Amino acid sequence: MKTFTGNYFEDFELGQVITHGTPRTITQGDNSLYIALTGSRYCIHSAEPVARALGFEHMPVDNFLAFHIAFGKTVPDISLNAVANLGYAEVLFRKPLYAGDTLFVESKVIGLKENSNGKSGIVYVHSIAKDQNLDVAIEWKRWVMVHKRDTSATTELNSTPDLPKHVSAEKLSIPAQLNFSEFEPRLSGSHDLWDDYNIGEEIDHIDGLTIDESDHTLATKLYQNNAKVHFNAFEMKSTPGGKRLMYGGHVISVCRALSHNGLANALYVSAINGGTHANPTYAGDTIYAQSQVIDKWQVDSDSHIGAIRVRTVGMKNTKPSDLPSIMVEKEGKQRYHPQVVLDLDYTLLMPIR
Amino acid sequence: MKTFTGNYFEDFELGQVITHGTPRTITQGDNSLYIALTGSRYCIHSAEPVARALGFEHMPVDNFLAFHIAFGKTVPDISLNAVANLGYAEVLFRKPLYAGDTLFVESKVIGLKENSNGKSGIVYVHSIAKDQNLDVAIEWKRWVMVHKRDTSATTELNSTPDLPKHVSAEKLSIPAQLNFSEFEPRLSGSHDLWDDYNIGEEIDHIDGLTIDESDHTLATKLYQNNAKVHFNAFEMKSTPGGKRLMYGGHVISVCRALSHNGLANALYVSAINGGTHANPTYAGDTIYAQSQVIDKWQVDSDSHIGAIRVRTVGMKNTKPSDLPSIMVEKEGKQRYHPQVVLDLDYTLLMPIR
Amino acid sequence: MKTFTGNYFEDFELGQVITHGTPRTITQGDNSLYIALTGSRYCIHSAEPVARALGFEHMPVDNFLAFHIAFGKTVPDISLNAVANLGYAEVLFRKPLYAGDTLFVESKVIGLKENSNGKSGIVYVHSIAKDQNLDVAIEWKRWVMVHKRDTSATTELNSTPDLPKHVSAEKLSIPAQLNFSEFEPRLSGSHDLWDDYNIGEEIDHIDGLTIDESDHTLATKLYQNNAKVHFNAFEMKSTPGGKRLMYGGHVISVCRALSHNGLANALYVSAINGGTHANPTYAGDTIYAQSQVIDKWQVDSDSHIGAIRVRTVGMKNTKPSDLPSIMVEKEGKQRYHPQVVLDLDYTLLMPIR
Repeated sequence: MKTFTGNYFEDFELGQVITHGTPRTITQGDNSLYIALTGSRYCIHSAEPVARALGFEHMPVDNFLAFHIAFGKTVPDISLNAVANLGYAEVLFRKPLYAGDTLFVESKVIGLKENSNGKSGIVYVHSIAKDQNLDVAIEWKRWVMVHKRDTSATTELNSTPDLPKHVSAEKLSIPAQLNFSEFEPRLSGSHDLWDDYNIGEEIDHIDGLTIDESDHTLATKLYQNNAKVHFNAFEMKSTPGGKRLMYGGHVISVCRALSHNGLANALYVSAINGGTHANPTYAGDTIYAQSQVIDKWQVDSDSHIGAIRVRTVGMKNTKPSDLPSIMVEKEGKQRYHPQVVLDLDYTLLMPIR
Repeated sequence: MKTFTGNYFEDFELGQVITHGTPRTITQGDNSLYIALTGSRYCIHSAEPVARALGFEHMPVDNFLAFHIAFGKTVPDISLNAVANLGYAEVLFRKPLYAGDTLFVESKVIGLKENSNGKSGIVYVHSIAKDQNLDVAIEWKRWVMVHKRDTSATTELNSTPDLPKHVSAEKLSIPAQLNFSEFEPRLSGSHDLWDDYNIGEEIDHIDGLTIDESDHTLATKLYQNNAKVHFNAFEMKSTPGGKRLMYGGHVISVCRALSHNGLANALYVSAINGGTHANPTYAGDTIYAQSQVIDKWQVDSDSHIGAIRVRTVGMKNTKPSDLPSIMVEKEGKQRYHPQVVLDLDYTLLMPIR
Repeated sequence: MKTFTGNYFEDFELGQVITHGTPRTITQGDNSLYIALTGSRYCIHSAEPVARALGFEHMPVDNFLAFHIAFGKTVPDISLNAVANLGYAEVLFRKPLYAGDTLFVESKVIGLKENSNGKSGIVYVHSIAKDQNLDVAIEWKRWVMVHKRDTSATTELNSTPDLPKHVSAEKLSIPAQLNFSEFEPRLSGSHDLWDDYNIGEEIDHIDGLTIDESDHTLATKLYQNNAKVHFNAFEMKSTPGGKRLMYGGHVISVCRALSHNGLANALYVSAINGGTHANPTYAGDTIYAQSQVIDKWQVDSDSHIGAIRVRTVGMKNTKPSDLPSIMVEKEGKQRYHPQVVLDLDYTLLMPIR
């Protein structure tokens, strides 16, 4: 067989390292497309002089753009036969990425646990995207439920890694030379800085963005993510949803873009603590987002860098103010409200006044 | 409140200067997207050697692309609560822009006039986009009708600026080093030069272009214009149009692209004298354009530069030859035919034979 | 008339050379858009270091992207009044193209044959795209059926060129410095090299990709191809198909992208031997592809370069495994199955182990 139909649960083994195909050089073309696809307005990804004034070598590409590209590389080997993407942990943005940088991605299998029904299992991987100098640029852990090839035999695999609930302050990689002391808030469109946010504070980002079929498929193809659920309308007709499913990463990017209105000075995504794609999203859905500040701390007072840990919840076809609650009880269990599509916990760097 | 719901009529004051957020570095990615979004075929924005042979430092980006980006910056502060974009005047392209240039945009309030109904007022602004060297790259005046925050109290504001009907020849900025003497018409696809156009001449540009939902939303997000009428299908359902409204600037760009067939050698947009978005445009509409030469003059005979002032009228779902008239009488008033969507008056530079 | 309605059969003469308008500088923006539009995952167009390690100066743009751009230039002059694009022959990719290169395109009329019905004729052209140094980058022959202007008079033109069925091995241009000896298959996602393919072998590429209205129109506008059948929904309503027709070149690109799964190491498109757009494709169609190896030979053993000649058949809304046959008999003639949309014969360079 010359074609590849993806790995099944039995194809993975603990400690195995997989080098993913198609390394990817990120270009200004990707950056422009990302702005067109999301409407993102964060100043460091839009203006070279603004980025340089803060110590970046150039205008960095959005860390979510880089993450989606790196993540896309892992799809053919890790999740082509996934039943579900279950979660992320410890997504670390270890250095800013610029147009011209190339990502080489590999994954190590760090856990394997067969499901009790014998039909599938959970694969835990630690993925690392290195740049052309072999410096680690992004790393993350994720776990996916993957079909078994042979449901009649049991593997008895039952190994799960320890995964932290969130990235601790010491684990954050602060870009070398980063200095927010000369930051001019008028260049971002908001005067609210790190000092102005309080733990527990909730922000309704107000705006909504409708995503069409070409938008999400262009984005996902740009990331070279080849999971067929996003692209093949012909085969998706016979699935319960009946149509192409939107890549959850695009929903993350749209929520991040929408949250500019309220978090315009949360300039740099430093880590993702965890994330859940709570419900599917389809073309035609209008996405809204709301955020809550769940922690904040000073990173470096000389360079005026603060960190803010935020939980952003994305929802479809309802304003945040009209959603009765994020969780609802169903059959005695707490579940996400059916219009909630994303629950993301991430850490951002923000200037201190 | 961390989120920004836009300024209301009472929030503006005469002489106020607003620095807009998110300066923007223009890249080759933007240029490629602009070609993909409009189908534009003007040679100086498509081919580096052609542009250089005419004295440009590099291939300049389309002045309409640069204008839409600069304009987009002003939306959050000026027109988020606009009832209507009423008009433009004196849009001056003061220097060519190249990939790598960054636009910083600010606006000065030059007029404020409350409407007699007490519900809204007209805000006049003079907006300036400077490049990274703080040279003025683009400037323009526009006026928008903006909601009042408090309709019970009158502001008695009644100041309107003097705005010229068109940009006079002396006010045009001719790019330094520009020289059309070596221009080869075969590179543009048309042999018609400045000499061949007559004042009063009408050109039916023949071709039509259908605009889909992703096209106009990608364009408008690329410009980082965040006016929600363009993006939020969920909320637009309850408006009279029932759906997302196309950004009028995208219609301008499509009409300019269509007018290549008939004005291929009108190489460089030097000024917009005025413009009206006559009727709304929605996804699925097919746009056509026709032009009339309303003036022409020699700019510089040594460098073979002529100017041509053109009125381009855009229309939807009708060929220009099938439109009975641009204006129709309704209730005793001259109004635009309901299929006319754009009335643009602009000045272009064209080689003299 | 300032507008151009295209050439009719009588407007062409044997030996005539036409310089096409709008030379085009290819940029990284085009490359990113091409990835977003097709989902292509070939490593040499995705990663600068991978391309350089094989001897390319930089990451070359996909030869199909370059071809579509070059082809688009010829449309206004050659095929605006085409009844049908009948075929291609001897499409030669003479040198790799990089971001920053500019294509200047001209066509020579090499055959003219009036149809017996007197209504149209076949125009054969040899088109050449040169770069900014006037080196030939791409050349090809194609023939199109073009309407006559005057169907009452006969031209008696009856000249057809000799066109080879395929490009012979000696005619291939192998990029200078190209060396596959250091190629690492793990970077492409497949371990199958030239050695592993057998003449006659069939590959079902498995995956399907649905193309939406904005996808194909963005692609075709990016190529500055202005054939109105692709863009004008208003006028296409009154045609038999009732809607916009997809540019066949985009179907080629999608089939090439899909064939990554099975031909991931067929790194470089060296020539197109011939191609037929068997049936029309419309927005909403899901495209699948299957390939057959029809020849293979060593190009250079020192540099580990092999050639593989492949026939790729594209089809819509059916998996290759469900298509009964490529050809079906209709009224005693062998015709393409109505779901077959592309029959492409091309030659690719592939590393030898």
